[in-house]
Amino acid sequence: MKALLLIDIQQGLQEVGFYGTERNNPQAESNSHTILEAFRSKGWPIFHIQHCSTNPDSPLHPSKKGNAFYPAVQPKEGEPVIQKNVNSAFIGTDLEQRLKTQNISEVVILGLTTEHCVSTSTRMAANLGFQVTLISDATAAFDKIGIDGKRIPAEVIHNTALANLKDEFATIKTTEALLDVINN
Amino acid sequence: MKALLLIDIQQGLQEVGFYGTERNNPQAESNSHTILEAFRSKGWPIFHIQHCSTNPDSPLHPSKKGNAFYPAVQPKEGEPVIQKNVNSAFIGTDLEQRLKTQNISEVVILGLTTEHCVSTSTRMAANLGFQVTLISDATAAFDKIGIDGKRIPAEVIHNTALANLKDEFATIKTTEALLDVINN
Repeated sequence: MKALLLIDIQQGLQEVGFYGTERNNPQAESNSHTILEAFRSKGWPIFHIQHCSTNPDSPLHPSKKGNAFYPAVQPKEGEPVIQKNVNSAFIGTDLEQRLKTQNISEVVILGLTTEHCVSTSTRMAANLGFQVTLISDATAAFDKIGIDGKRIPAEVIHNTALANLKDEFATIKTTEALLDVINN
Repeated sequence: MKALLLIDIQQGLQEVGFYGTERNNPQAESNSHTILEAFRSKGWPIFHIQHCSTNPDSPLHPSKKGNAFYPAVQPKEGEPVIQKNVNSAFIGTDLEQRLKTQNISEVVILGLTTEHCVSTSTRMAANLGFQVTLISDATAAFDKIGIDGKRIPAEVIHNTALANLKDEFATIKTTEALLDVINN
């Protein structure tokens, strides 16, 4: 049984300035929408993960508009929403137990951001024993300042994060390749 | 109370060909030794994490010579050894419970590899509520093949992994900066 985990696809992650100076993969949200609709049409399990930051300045703090889900991936009635306040969707939540209770052994992960919450949740899902497929063009990264003070572009952060997850923690697929599997 | 976590500093991680084509930071093991001796001289808690791979081909499989600790960081009698078989030192082990029982709220992490077990254990330590300091020159990375098929050098893997952990999960320090703190 395969489940979809949508990680932190919230309005606050449009606020580029808080997280860096640029974000790659502007199509991550629309690709996530397409995959969400494919899972809905199959009646497969869906879990919406929502980051509720404990930092009052964060766009993802529950007091902020940015805490809301991005419109294209708004949960429908009956679809579970799992709230978390750290990067991993498995810490401080009952996600692992819910997946195991439903005999789910395989998860498809997408959302934001590649390098923080998506990488952390992917690593932990794999280490907890789930088979993980991560969708490369339905996740996105922000640029970072390295320990040498130099800026690292968002695309480099994205690609290195995926290279580190590939094989060791997850199978990496594009949206198109996943849809081929779902529809055939 | 501050503890040292030495992650997978085992002989098998000298076998570059199994993990990639090059490794950076050849001084990671000697820096780890220096920090280990500093913790020993203070009598501060030390945990040796040992990866026992379930893959019979891995240099870290318990049947292989490579499973042994690297000589310079060999555990002394009485120093706890925590064996794991996934990337995170906190999954399938009692490490979290041991740290909490000893009222340890802060961990210094070093070891191998930056992008796999060190990153995963750092992320999870932080998300479990520990204050984490990660030692940039006492950890090392291998090169990777990206999802576009292009090779990404070990130094780029190392620097991007640290940039992703910095501030969000850990304070990044050099061996020298850590020793300054320990000795003053």
